[in-house]
Amino acid sequence: MKVDVECAPCLLYRGYRELSKATDDMETRFEVMEALLKLEQSEFGPEAVPAVLGTKRDRLIKVMTGVADPYQQDKKRSNSYALMLYPGLRERVLSKGGGWGSFSEAVRLSILGNSIEMDVLDHNFSPEDISRLVEPLPLGIDTSKEIFELAKKSKSVLFICDNAGEIVFDRILVERIKELGARCTVAVKGGPVLNDATLLDAHEAGLDEVADEIITTGSDSVGVFLEDSSEKFREVFEDSGLVVAKGMGNYETLTEESLSVPVAHLLLAKCDPVARSIGVKRGEGAASIRVPTIR
Amino acid sequence: MKVDVECAPCLLYRGYRELSKATDDMETRFEVMEALLKLEQSEFGPEAVPAVLGTKRDRLIKVMTGVADPYQQDKKRSNSYALMLYPGLRERVLSKGGGWGSFSEAVRLSILGNSIEMDVLDHNFSPEDISRLVEPLPLGIDTSKEIFELAKKSKSVLFICDNAGEIVFDRILVERIKELGARCTVAVKGGPVLNDATLLDAHEAGLDEVADEIITTGSDSVGVFLEDSSEKFREVFEDSGLVVAKGMGNYETLTEESLSVPVAHLLLAKCDPVARSIGVKRGEGAASIRVPTIR
Repeated sequence: MKVDVECAPCLLYRGYRELSKATDDMETRFEVMEALLKLEQSEFGPEAVPAVLGTKRDRLIKVMTGVADPYQQDKKRSNSYALMLYPGLRERVLSKGGGWGSFSEAVRLSILGNSIEMDVLDHNFSPEDISRLVEPLPLGIDTSKEIFELAKKSKSVLFICDNAGEIVFDRILVERIKELGARCTVAVKGGPVLNDATLLDAHEAGLDEVADEIITTGSDSVGVFLEDSSEKFREVFEDSGLVVAKGMGNYETLTEESLSVPVAHLLLAKCDPVARSIGVKRGEGAASIRVPTIR
Repeated sequence: MKVDVECAPCLLYRGYRELSKATDDMETRFEVMEALLKLEQSEFGPEAVPAVLGTKRDRLIKVMTGVADPYQQDKKRSNSYALMLYPGLRERVLSKGGGWGSFSEAVRLSILGNSIEMDVLDHNFSPEDISRLVEPLPLGIDTSKEIFELAKKSKSVLFICDNAGEIVFDRILVERIKELGARCTVAVKGGPVLNDATLLDAHEAGLDEVADEIITTGSDSVGVFLEDSSEKFREVFEDSGLVVAKGMGNYETLTEESLSVPVAHLLLAKCDPVARSIGVKRGEGAASIRVPTIR
């Protein structure tokens, strides 16, 4: 997905928020902001990809402030709040009777969990808000039945996670995928970026108890670019009958790839450019699937 | 007032919003956004003044889109909604019994009217929200008694307006200043900038019926810089016993001037940098006065 005009202030706003978490030193903040403006000025244009600019921005902030993980505390709190909700949400999913009933409920909850994202312009969310996330969102696009059928006939499914906290909601969906008989590999980020889940979060959320294997993308980029990922990740990706990709970052990057496997995007549209691109309204959820035309 | 780090995304966000009002053409929007990034990249730093960057941004948008007044409709609606509230608000002020009672109530309403501003990051306001503006705000700083005493002993007062719609609220305060016996000159912008009031708005709001004279600053800059203003404006400014300056833009610029007359700032702090600078919390009002130490 390419940037829209409004991505320019949003990318900078998020940079400011990250920077404020990383350092209190005003001189450093100004230096980093000036560097961010320089970066954006040199790279912003109709062909830019928001996740690429975001990745460069985040690496710059980490290097210039010396803080490797500005969202460390937010992630920890997100996981711990979400885990408090886990038993009740899982029970709700199981009460739908297994198979399609439980699967579709788990898809909706997983999309709802994608609300857990900090510092997006006009999308206010803090870990404390997680307890509000008990009512499923309306879905502007819902191809979950197709996703269900694909998961059912796949030997192996790759589940690419997005944010900490959200992965507790994902765990319930991973359990459903396992129930359908597929091997399920869960991928998290190879290094800290935004409030995205890393290996530490996957273990905190208990994903290691349900997934067949936890791997990383091998990169700290926003979303996931195949050429930027580890060989292991690429292999698992290509060998999957279905890839489930959570969130906006993975949507922004994977829509730039020419894919040979079906990819299901589960996300909450938190900004207009992504909403327009995927075809829903801002604030709506989407369960969308892209199937390669040539296999 | 100098910029804070967070002014960088805010200045760009407002540029995006103005640009969206000015043109639907995506190619032009991208071209202008790239020019805005270039402008900000070259001028942003600890010594920059937000209103200066804002002025350059707004002129650039006007020139590149060919739209002289992107906020024309918003201003018209703001005036017309505010005029519907005018009789009730005026009655409330008059019921305080004239003199100090009425004056202090009028100051509070005038500050409340400063809410009427569009497209400030994290300050959502549209003309339709004006009807909510009936309850005075808490003031974090309140030197209105001092302002009252100064107005009482001044032969002439200059009242520098900020936004359209807001000027209807200001009208009630101008009436109170007149009641104290001072000549009152009202100044509006010399050309369209943001949703700031111009001569057209001053007439729509009926300010010409209460002020002794309506002048303009002679400039379309955000806030008011003396050297950028008309000779007439500078003369009136220097000859006043009291200058009342509404809003954040006038605060940002006049705090950069070395003044020979007392200036009262009446504003609602809609962002943290201004709130910190003047000494209130964001979302609070301020009635602050700066009196020159050397006269």
